[in-house]
Formats: sequence, C-alpha cells, structure tokens
Amino acid sequence: MEGLKLIHMDENETVKKQIKRGREEQSPFDSEEFRTSNGISLDVTYMFDAPGDGSISREGVESLIPDVMKVHHMLKNNQGDIYDGDILMTGWQDLPSEITREHLRDIKSVTRGVAGEVDAFVSIGIGGSFVGIEATVRALTHQYFNQLDREKRGGAPEIYFLGYNMDPDFFRDTLDLLEGKRVAINVISKSGTTTETAIAFRILQDMMEKSWGDKASELIFVTTDKVSGALRKMAEQKDYRSFVIPDNIGGRYSVLTDVGLVGLAMANIDIEEFVAGFKNMREIALGDDFWQNPSLVHAAMRHSAWRAGKKVEVVATNAVSLYSVARWMEQLFPESEGHEGHGLWVSPSLYSEKLHANGQMVQEGERNILETFLLLKEHDNRVRIPGTEDNLDGLNFLVDSGLDMNFISRKIIEGPAYAHYHGGVPNMTVEIPKRNAFNLGQLYYMMERSVAISGYLLGHNPFIQPGVEAYKHAMFALIGKPGFEEIAREIEQHLEKMKRIRVP
Amino acid sequence: MEGLKLIHMDENETVKKQIKRGREEQSPFDSEEFRTSNGISLDVTYMFDAPGDGSISREGVESLIPDVMKVHHMLKNNQGDIYDGDILMTGWQDLPSEITREHLRDIKSVTRGVAGEVDAFVSIGIGGSFVGIEATVRALTHQYFNQLDREKRGGAPEIYFLGYNMDPDFFRDTLDLLEGKRVAINVISKSGTTTETAIAFRILQDMMEKSWGDKASELIFVTTDKVSGALRKMAEQKDYRSFVIPDNIGGRYSVLTDVGLVGLAMANIDIEEFVAGFKNMREIALGDDFWQNPSLVHAAMRHSAWRAGKKVEVVATNAVSLYSVARWMEQLFPESEGHEGHGLWVSPSLYSEKLHANGQMVQEGERNILETFLLLKEHDNRVRIPGTEDNLDGLNFLVDSGLDMNFISRKIIEGPAYAHYHGGVPNMTVEIPKRNAFNLGQLYYMMERSVAISGYLLGHNPFIQPGVEAYKHAMFALIGKPGFEEIAREIEQHLEKMKRIRVP
Repeated sequence: MEGLKLIHMDENETVKKQIKRGREEQSPFDSEEFRTSNGISLDVTYMFDAPGDGSISREGVESLIPDVMKVHHMLKNNQGDIYDGDILMTGWQDLPSEITREHLRDIKSVTRGVAGEVDAFVSIGIGGSFVGIEATVRALTHQYFNQLDREKRGGAPEIYFLGYNMDPDFFRDTLDLLEGKRVAINVISKSGTTTETAIAFRILQDMMEKSWGDKASELIFVTTDKVSGALRKMAEQKDYRSFVIPDNIGGRYSVLTDVGLVGLAMANIDIEEFVAGFKNMREIALGDDFWQNPSLVHAAMRHSAWRAGKKVEVVATNAVSLYSVARWMEQLFPESEGHEGHGLWVSPSLYSEKLHANGQMVQEGERNILETFLLLKEHDNRVRIPGTEDNLDGLNFLVDSGLDMNFISRKIIEGPAYAHYHGGVPNMTVEIPKRNAFNLGQLYYMMERSVAISGYLLGHNPFIQPGVEAYKHAMFALIGKPGFEEIAREIEQHLEKMKRIRVP
Repeated sequence: MEGLKLIHMDENETVKKQIKRGREEQSPFDSEEFRTSNGISLDVTYMFDAPGDGSISREGVESLIPDVMKVHHMLKNNQGDIYDGDILMTGWQDLPSEITREHLRDIKSVTRGVAGEVDAFVSIGIGGSFVGIEATVRALTHQYFNQLDREKRGGAPEIYFLGYNMDPDFFRDTLDLLEGKRVAINVISKSGTTTETAIAFRILQDMMEKSWGDKASELIFVTTDKVSGALRKMAEQKDYRSFVIPDNIGGRYSVLTDVGLVGLAMANIDIEEFVAGFKNMREIALGDDFWQNPSLVHAAMRHSAWRAGKKVEVVATNAVSLYSVARWMEQLFPESEGHEGHGLWVSPSLYSEKLHANGQMVQEGERNILETFLLLKEHDNRVRIPGTEDNLDGLNFLVDSGLDMNFISRKIIEGPAYAHYHGGVPNMTVEIPKRNAFNLGQLYYMMERSVAISGYLLGHNPFIQPGVEAYKHAMFALIGKPGFEEIAREIEQHLEKMKRIRVP
C-alpha cells in the first residue's frame, strides 16, 4: 500500500512561507519612515448596548476618555506609581526604538553558529522567561515543528522547553527525546535561583558536562542580570555565552529583550521584522487621538467592562497558531491588573473548539463575560472542500459557492461575535491581516500598552507582582529551604488546628 | 561529538510503564468485587473560613446536605428535568456496569487489525467527540507520543486529531505529517452534519479514496447514531466499519462510549481498566453517606462557592499529563451549568507554570475565585537533582535531604493551597495516587456525577446545551447555508444599523 497523496491543496508552500514569514514586504526596519497605517485594527462594533444587565454604552466609554488620556500622558512621561523598589519599570516603552541592528546581528550570528552544531535546543525558563518565547515560536512556525525534517525547519534545530513545571514524567519524556542528540541550552532567570528553572538547569548542565567535558560550555547560554546573581557569576566562572535581562523591564513585558530574541533567532524567526513590528505599533500607540489608537481603545473598553461588572475576558482566536498568543495575554493582563482585589480573569480559547466546550456558558451562563477576539483574516493556506455526489452532509453549497476553509475560518469568529452579542456578551475583534513576525510584534506592543493603561486606570502599579512570592514562600517552607523554617512551623500549626478533612 | 547521555535517572522505564499502565494490579473488571476503597480522595481542608469576603462555612455546606441528598436520589431514580426532547439523558449513569467484556474485545480486535496496517490514525470530531479522547490519550501516553519510534509506542500508530477547528494552516500542517503515510481515520459525529467535522472528513475521505480506491473503505471508521443520520447512511452505502453514539448520553459524558473507546484502544490504552475505574467509582458515587462520597462533596462545595459569589473555578494540576483532563472539565462543567445565567467559569491550569502567569491574580485579584486541584501524588519517574560544588543557586539542601522532583511536584500544589487559602481563595484537592487508566476512569465518573448534582442544584437541566446552537446559526447564515437566509438578513440589517467602529 502506498502512502497518502494530498489533493485539493495548493502547492506545498507552507514550509517555505514559514521560513520567510515576515520578509514578504520590504522591511521598515531599514527605513526611517514607519508604516503608520499598519493593517492591525480593533473592531468594537459589538461592544455597546448588548442586551441584558451590565451593558456598556458609547457615552460611558467616552466619559472615560479624559481619564484614559491623562494616564496615557503620565505613562509617556514616566509618571505615577510605576517603580519596583527604585527602578522605573517602563523600559519596555521605548525599547523598540532602542534596539540596534548590530545587536540583532550579534544574536543571529551566535545562534546560527550554535544551531549548526546541535540537533536540539532547549529553552529553560518560567513565567516571562517562557511564555513569550513559546507563544512566538508556536505562532510563527509549523504546528509540528519538531517532527519536520531539519531542512523543512529552515535548518533550525528541534526546540524544547523545560524549567516551567516540576513534573518528573514530563521532564523524563523530554529527555527521552534529547537522549543521543547534540543539544544546546539557554537558561533564563534574572536571579538564577528560580526553583523550577534552576533545577532543570542543574540536571541538563550536569549531563552536558559529563557527556562533553569542556565543550559543554560552548553549548550553554545564560540569559540573566547584567551584573549580579547566581547565573551571572556562573557565566563568568565557566565562560558561558551570556545575554542580558534588563532591570527596568518585567518578565511579562520582556519578549523583545534578549529573553525572547535568542530563542526566536534559534527557531529561525525573523527578529528584525519582529522588532520592526514593535517599532511600528509604538508610533501608533503613542498617538493622542483616542479613536485612532487601538491600545487606548482596547484599554478603555476593558476598563469599562470591568466597571460594568464583567469578571471574565475570553480571548478567543480562529487560528491554532495564535492560541499561544492568547496564553501570553493570560499572563500579561492578570499579572498586571490582578492586584488589590481588581482585574478581569483572562481565559484563552480556540474557536470553534471551545464553542463546543464552554460555548454554552458564554451564550447563556452568567452575564459577566467580555470577549476579545484575535481574528486572523488571511491564513497562509487555502484548503478547498471537495464535492460529493449525494451531498449527505448538506455541505455541497460550499463547493458550489467556491468557498474554502480560509473563508469559513473567519466566520468562526464573526458568527459568535453576533450570537454572543445578542446573548449579552459585549465583544471586540483585533483583526490581524497576516501571520508574520511584523504583525506579531505589533500585536504585542498594542497589548503591552493596553494593559499598562488599564492597570493605571485601576489605580495601582501594573509593573510589579508581589503576590507571586506568596506561593513560593509556602513551597520553600514545605521543601525545607533554609530561611523558611518559620513559615514551615506556621503551616504545620495551621493544619493541626484545622484538621484534615478527606473524602472518603 | 557524541549524543547526550542521560544520568541521574532510573532505568528507562517510562515507555514500558506507559504501555502497561493500568495493568499493574489485578483487574477488578474480572471480578464481581469492586475495590470500594479506591485511593482517589477529595481533601477539602482548605475550603472553609478563608479570610475575606465570600468565605464558605462548614455549617453552610452542611445545611445544604438535605438538598444534595434529594437531588442525589432523584438522579439515581431518573427523576427531574433531565430529558432532551423525549429522551432520558442519564444513560452515562449506569453505563459502566453495562459494558461487556465482549464489546471491549470486539473494539480491540478491530483496532489491532487496522493499527497493524497503518502508520497514523486520525480521530475526527469536535466537542464531546474530541475532548475526552484527546484528554485521555494525553493523560496516559508519552508527552511526545508521535515522535517516538513505533516500538516505544507499543506498536500503536501515530495519533492525530482533526475536525475541531477551521484553521486551514493547522489542517495543512497536519497533512504535511500524513503525506506518504498509510492512514486510518475515525469520524465521530451523531448527525454527520457537524460542519467542522464533516468538512475535515470530506477532505480525508476523498484523499484516501483517490490514493487507495476500494481499499480506503477498510481504513475508515464511522462513529455515529445507531440508525439515522448522514454518516450512518454513508457507512451502510460504503460498508465502513461503524460504532455507535448512544441516544441517551450527551457528548460531554460520552468518553466511556464507543466515542472514546475506539480512539483509546488505537492508542494502546487499557480500555478494560478504564471501564473498571468507572465501575469502581460508580459504586462509591452511588453511596448515601455524604462525607464518604467525593462526588457529592465536590458538588456541594462548588455549589456553596457559587452561592458565596465565586465566579471562576481554577482547575489546576501539577502533572503536564493531567492538564488535558482539566480541559475535559472545562467542557463538562460549564456546558452543564452555564444555563439561565448560572455557573462557575472553569479555567484549566498547569502549576507551577501558571503561578508565574496569572498566579498574581489568584493571590491578590478579585476574591471571586475557587480552586480545585488535581494532585498527582506519585509520578512514574524519579528524577534526582545533582549537587553542585559552589551551590550558587542555593539548592544543595534538596540534594542533602535526598529529595527528588517527584517530592517537589507535590509541593507545587500544597504550597499554593496554603498560600491561596490565606489570600482568600478556598480550595480543595483531588488526590490521585497514580496515573493509570483505572484512576482516570474513576476521576471521570466522579466528575460526571458531581456536575450532574450541581446542575440539578442550580435548578435547570444539566444534560442539554441549547446555547451551542446560537453561534452555529449565525455562522451558517454567514457562510450561506441554505435555510439560514433569514438570519443572514437580520445580521446584515443589524450591522447596517450599528455601523462598524474600527480603530484606527
């Protein structure tokens, strides 16, 4: 029996497209003129006057504009409660225009050199040192990247992620894939003491040193604080190639720093175009005309929804590749807004998958939901639908109209936008013309600025995350980390007092 | 340069364990005696009296017990608003004890036969015809199943899923992997007209017929209504091997029917043990002692939390493999509860990944959160942590205490349970002793019964999903499906009236 033959497809351009993705048009990075008409739009048609309680009015949003413009200018001028200790945490704001071509060239030269020597690359990190890199790699590469031949990956090694959980089965399964391969790693942690990341690094480092001796040091990258911390010290001792996590940019805003750029370059993603997208949206998002600025409008809509009693924001996309970007937003927004009893819960979704899962609740459950759609308007591929003689499933009308899957994919957002609105769920759509590094950079900057604004509007510092320490301290106490004996005693006393209740 | 050598590992038992997972002890399926002390427990220690507003008291839960017991008995006796049309929708209730060994043997014989002839198997379905199968395959197999050698998959073919979205890039990427391979498919749809599934099936069917002629019909399975519908008719015409979706079991409760069993058998999962787990928990969950019945207690806790103003239930696990089970719950609960303005929003999470993402909001955001943890107590693998000479990351204490990753993994739940409770988030823990088919079957039945009870308590029918039709109708109108011209006109008029608002 022969293998399956593909038909109803265009020429196999998927892989080629993926490699050059973002390079189809002239790069604005080379030019002083930015494309200010960029193509990413925010459609808020379905935001106003949804039926039922808790609806949002255009007048309500417009009455908020003076406040929005005030914090917009405060942010531009670095005013307000935006320090972590004595460090101003808005470094991400102007970062896109500060990154030099030389810096990108250096990164590419390093990653290309190492990529040629290895079969697999492991990015080790958690939180902001994981989510943005993974999101971007998944968004811009083949969905089965590691299963492709190397040539079809454009020469990139296989890419894996570790250090973001403590599941030994997952760790071991990943090692099953790495065994016998030539491997390079990048460990990403500002302090170098983040438990999950440090443990994964210890294990990989030890294996690499025992497998390859001194050669291992050429295959280990460190991305950490510029001057201090455990990893910086180690990098100096062992002569590891190192990259920098800036002081003035929090993890969730760090995808454009070395934190993100090294992994993306390793996956063959066009980092120049990525930076260009950030730069372009920065120009747009600094604009002072509210109704022309998608960051300001997005922030105002979300804040209005929160004020109107919405509790959950569904971030839904029609593109499997962009689901990971919704996951990136699942960190960016709650970590910035979830302080002092505030904030919308963000729930990433792939449609239509989830329409057949929790879609019932979106349509008819508690009316405390807002939706932001990430609509990919044009996919890279056309997939035609073949006709059938007897039309048992009733879908020949699609064939007769010449409609392909790309067309239907758009309706997977437009249909729910209409139906959910009429069910009492206000919603807005971020329209993304094409999937490429430039547009992804734009989208990231739009969202970073949106949440900075909505965080300011909530009246607290959107650039810190003190609550993340609480679980760490309890966990440190439970694993017996020196210095946490006091908390360990507290937990023990607490559990004695409460008595365990287990069923059965 | 040689490949990476693994050290600090036990013998490589991962793959072997996966294959025989669920067969370590004598199968209770063969015996009339069920293991009523099953090992799955629900720990509700941290549910009561969390600080801050909206806390839940033990007295409050106990005052609810009479209501819980009432609906528990109604459910057992098939009373109440539990019909879809004139069909009683509680077929899942007694299903575990109705499945015969012969039926399982037939399924295995069919899947084994076909598995031997193909390289890859594609399960085509959406909603309940996708989520449960995918969840179980991911939960019980190697995390990189399709990248393993066939032998390490226990002889199973590669497994893919299609038909649950309309993204042509994802479709095409999957076809890239299928091209040139020998492929079998199972299309799962009760009506046979579900758009996403029917389109994916049309394409695969056409390719298979053009590649292999008549032989294709031996490689196409159909899982559909017993007597009617497009797929049943086609199965008869084309002589496809067919399986049955029962009338009296909704999609989200269907993982134990042929819907789930065929795909699981194809992935080499022990379906006898899976059924045995269901049977075992059924015995427990039918019990009338509230504090000995995890389904009743889980339902009462969730309902109390909802009454106390909780809006979001985080279902978090320490096991990458069980994240997909949390996703299964993301369908089961909201689709059953999200009616008439009711229901808790369910948000699946992997810890500690998400603790570094939206963990800030769980700890310090709006106090409207409940947590249910799925705690895997013992992983299959031990991964030891190597010591370092200079202890730069301060983690040598773990090495000195002889603690491995399996131990820390538990603390990834126990730490947050304590910290979140003290931050005002009540939480409970489902303790799962080992990851195997038996325990997964138990967990599923426990949760199915829990949501049936909590759905009853909300006062509406938990076995229908009328809201899912709304998006479909709007989408049908937008893609020009005959019969939906009226809605198409409504949408057009609506958009004219509203005027599009796009930024910029």
